[in-house]
Amino acid sequence: MAAEFWYEFASTYSYPAAMRVASLAEARGVSLVWRPFLLGPIFASQGWRDSPFNIYPAKGRYMWRDLQRICDALGLLLRRPEPFPQNSLLAARVALTLEGKERAEFSRQVYAAEFGEGLPIADRATIAALLPKLGLDPDAVLARAESEANKARLKAECARAAELGIIGAPSLVTDDGEVFWGNDRLEQGLDWAAGKRA
Amino acid sequence: MAAEFWYEFASTYSYPAAMRVASLAEARGVSLVWRPFLLGPIFASQGWRDSPFNIYPAKGRYMWRDLQRICDALGLLLRRPEPFPQNSLLAARVALTLEGKERAEFSRQVYAAEFGEGLPIADRATIAALLPKLGLDPDAVLARAESEANKARLKAECARAAELGIIGAPSLVTDDGEVFWGNDRLEQGLDWAAGKRA
Repeated sequence: MAAEFWYEFASTYSYPAAMRVASLAEARGVSLVWRPFLLGPIFASQGWRDSPFNIYPAKGRYMWRDLQRICDALGLLLRRPEPFPQNSLLAARVALTLEGKERAEFSRQVYAAEFGEGLPIADRATIAALLPKLGLDPDAVLARAESEANKARLKAECARAAELGIIGAPSLVTDDGEVFWGNDRLEQGLDWAAGKRA
Repeated sequence: MAAEFWYEFASTYSYPAAMRVASLAEARGVSLVWRPFLLGPIFASQGWRDSPFNIYPAKGRYMWRDLQRICDALGLLLRRPEPFPQNSLLAARVALTLEGKERAEFSRQVYAAEFGEGLPIADRATIAALLPKLGLDPDAVLARAESEANKARLKAECARAAELGIIGAPSLVTDDGEVFWGNDRLEQGLDWAAGKRA
């Protein structure tokens, strides 16, 4: 039993989801593939050139309050990075060069820096500082991340997300092609992946 | 302990919410006030002249599939009314003339007709046919619903919803002004209303 966890580093609700998803999947015996992608191309195809939370201020106010309650309940710090949303291109490229547990751990560290500490993950220095904690050499990883092959790979991931019908992040996608959008759908999506569908 | 349940008869996710909310509230000892309103004015203030599920087709496709899974899990029928969304003005006006359990029961019957059977609730005949089931006289109720006083009352309810920061339906609003948006937030909102906040 497997599921894909599609996430975007600029996405606020991907933060609590990234912190929760591994243990939820393990508890259900579901093996998880972490798939970083960019929502930008999907939003652009809907005519949005900015986060909908900025385009619609009332929606943004609601989201920040809702996220605060969610983080409070989980014991997660929440600090809004400036500007919001952060450019997540470099973080996504780096995550894509890592595999398995390294990718998951790097991704959680990016979210903790961005939304727990309010650090600018768009800055190369923020990303570079996370890599030694994983025993990785920042220069080597960043060079791989910015290779033409890896840039093309991320583009292909974004195209795949659109093809799957993903419209937001985080999204869980099951083997049989079901998409579950939102931090609040993780349990339902993983139950589905585990074969419990009612 | 009390909470307000704000709902819109054209709203798809308000359907399962309306069917679930009374028992969820009762189980927590929360008394519930049913507050029908119209999302139209709120959507218009965001520049939308149609349902976002129609404006953004990918979002619409996702929503119908998501709603199907939710209804399947709850044992609720789902049949899409045509056109979607239905004009919900008359249903909201009628609901507002009823009080307490009568309002709740009428509201559940509207949702069952609209999304369970796919009936056009914009049609006067559909609404009129529901009232005798509640022991009410359709002509008398419709006359009250369309009185100038009741029309003004519904307008005031819509203004109040915007003032509370409501951006979608269904929404639960607690005594201390917290807004919980979505069928998937009912439990969290009612827990909050019952004093369990973590």
